Amino acid sequence: MSFEVVWWDGDAVGYVDQRLLPQALVRERAAGIDGVVEAIATLAVRGAPCIGAFGAYGVALAHVLFPDDPAAFAAAAARIREARPTAVNLAWAVDRVLAAEGGAYLDEALAIHAEQRAVDRALCEFGAALMPDDGSLLTHCNTGPLATGAEGTALGVIVAAHRRGKRIHVYVDETRPLLQGARLTTFELAAAGVPATLIVDGAAAATVRAKNVAAVIVGADRIARNGDTANKIGTYQTAIVAAHHGIPFYVAAPRSTIDFSLATGEGIRIEERGADEVRAFGGVAVAPPGVPVFNPAFDVTPGHLIAGIVTEYGVARPPYSESLPDLQTRPALGVLERLRAGGAGR
Amino acid sequence: MSFEVVWWDGDAVGYVDQRLLPQALVRERAAGIDGVVEAIATLAVRGAPCIGAFGAYGVALAHVLFPDDPAAFAAAAARIREARPTAVNLAWAVDRVLAAEGGAYLDEALAIHAEQRAVDRALCEFGAALMPDDGSLLTHCNTGPLATGAEGTALGVIVAAHRRGKRIHVYVDETRPLLQGARLTTFELAAAGVPATLIVDGAAAATVRAKNVAAVIVGADRIARNGDTANKIGTYQTAIVAAHHGIPFYVAAPRSTIDFSLATGEGIRIEERGADEVRAFGGVAVAPPGVPVFNPAFDVTPGHLIAGIVTEYGVARPPYSESLPDLQTRPALGVLERLRAGGAGR
Repeated sequence: MSFEVVWWDGDAVGYVDQRLLPQALVRERAAGIDGVVEAIATLAVRGAPCIGAFGAYGVALAHVLFPDDPAAFAAAAARIREARPTAVNLAWAVDRVLAAEGGAYLDEALAIHAEQRAVDRALCEFGAALMPDDGSLLTHCNTGPLATGAEGTALGVIVAAHRRGKRIHVYVDETRPLLQGARLTTFELAAAGVPATLIVDGAAAATVRAKNVAAVIVGADRIARNGDTANKIGTYQTAIVAAHHGIPFYVAAPRSTIDFSLATGEGIRIEERGADEVRAFGGVAVAPPGVPVFNPAFDVTPGHLIAGIVTEYGVARPPYSESLPDLQTRPALGVLERLRAGGAGR
Repeated sequence: MSFEVVWWDGDAVGYVDQRLLPQALVRERAAGIDGVVEAIATLAVRGAPCIGAFGAYGVALAHVLFPDDPAAFAAAAARIREARPTAVNLAWAVDRVLAAEGGAYLDEALAIHAEQRAVDRALCEFGAALMPDDGSLLTHCNTGPLATGAEGTALGVIVAAHRRGKRIHVYVDETRPLLQGARLTTFELAAAGVPATLIVDGAAAATVRAKNVAAVIVGADRIARNGDTANKIGTYQTAIVAAHHGIPFYVAAPRSTIDFSLATGEGIRIEERGADEVRAFGGVAVAPPGVPVFNPAFDVTPGHLIAGIVTEYGVARPPYSESLPDLQTRPALGVLERLRAGGAGR
């Protein structure tokens, strides 16, 4: 990808409006807190790590807007932190910026974004080693550069495997209701030159069987200490399909996605979104008006269905209640990199 | 439902264009073979039993058009028979009309349609007894009156259970790519007064778990002697989900759906449909132009995942290689009914 997805833009936060892709690449500026919150809430900016970087810049913006009003600054940061409930990265990034030494909020936001690149690169290399030398994969939703603002997670792993010369073919779930797979993942795979085929979500099991898919790899929005993983609605189903066909189901996510305060996925609050995402598409009604809809944005895949969780520290394996807490104590990659480069750790 | 879905309309075949539902109820007349074939191929008329009745009327129409040209008549019937490859009912109905004694093609087509009603009524009563007295169900695609031109199969079972006073709540897969669940099943359930909630296909597993769904029930397009069942793409996945959650997965289909010539589902030819069904949604492009698509219209659910197959003769149970062939020798319900009513069997 040759463009930035989120960035600091003077006294505003810049972003690509992902709702308009792949038809149009439109850059926007959020110059107020309303704009930041709205971009997150409407999924103009989406993907857990990307939301984290964007939210971090949002806190820096709040400080620009309210330099001498701590109450307004805190209220703005709280609004950004709550703009989407499920992704742990947003709260994590906001809290980290708020804790910046000496009020260096923008520096901290820039550091978060820079670290994201280092984290993604490490994660992608560990994941690429897991991928088959020659075979088909299935993925769900969008987990590439558009999702993380850097190299990507699950999709970054796939692209890294392709660049290593592995002969990978990717089947892409379209990922209803918002079709991030159809709109964004196929766009990113084409840009990276990885052979890919789009399917409807309901075709995943038939495709795994008919096309001899070797593994499933997805991203994550929040991971509990036992490996239970919240990710885009439909993920749990693909994990069941993988188990039924005896193929590995992998999750790729940075450590910041792991919520070490959660023992299991039962504590993960699942956002329910509006009915019109399901009842209509592109302004076209596809169901009778007023029909009731159940539209959870995420589901939780139990850790026991997950063969490995790929992080920037390597591949965590079951039992996750042992392998994941072990990650909590590792030094941040970004800190290491900056120390190596002669910078100051913070 | 208070309207006919397919009917004989003088020297034409009448039908409701189901592509326009639920926004508009548009009645059309096919007065030539092109119109009959196109209505089937474009899914204006869909649902395996409904296609069967429609194709039967189509053969009667061919005889009206070519009364003195056996070659043209045979060619027209062959074109209708091949308009969709997977649904066994179409070939079955066409062959049955062609074999009508004394060339009474229209009488035979009317008999097929009338028998369909008797078959559906019997099937729905057997199926209703299987449904929970108080609980939630999941269904996929559309299997109501719009699908059979009579009472329906899986959806007819649900409606019959509701009419018996069972407290049923139905979760409806939207059923991409053509959204028969969103467009037609929610419409039919609302018309029948059955509480229903629409979900995206990817939410099925999360819904089964979160809403404590008691059973899954679907229709079928073709069933092999061992119970392997071809049905709308996505069905296999819901069967895997049901097995994973330990709830029964039922198929409801008339005997005419069983292809006694097929030992297993491996012999079932799966229709692949055009890429634009997936690349676009309601006429709106949702993927980059030209992205490759795998779009099988059906998948095959192995018989071992199916708890029961509900037919007009009762519920066939595993092992299907014994229970299904047993059905082949039973007298047709329609024949019995006409004999009881004093009519002549044929």
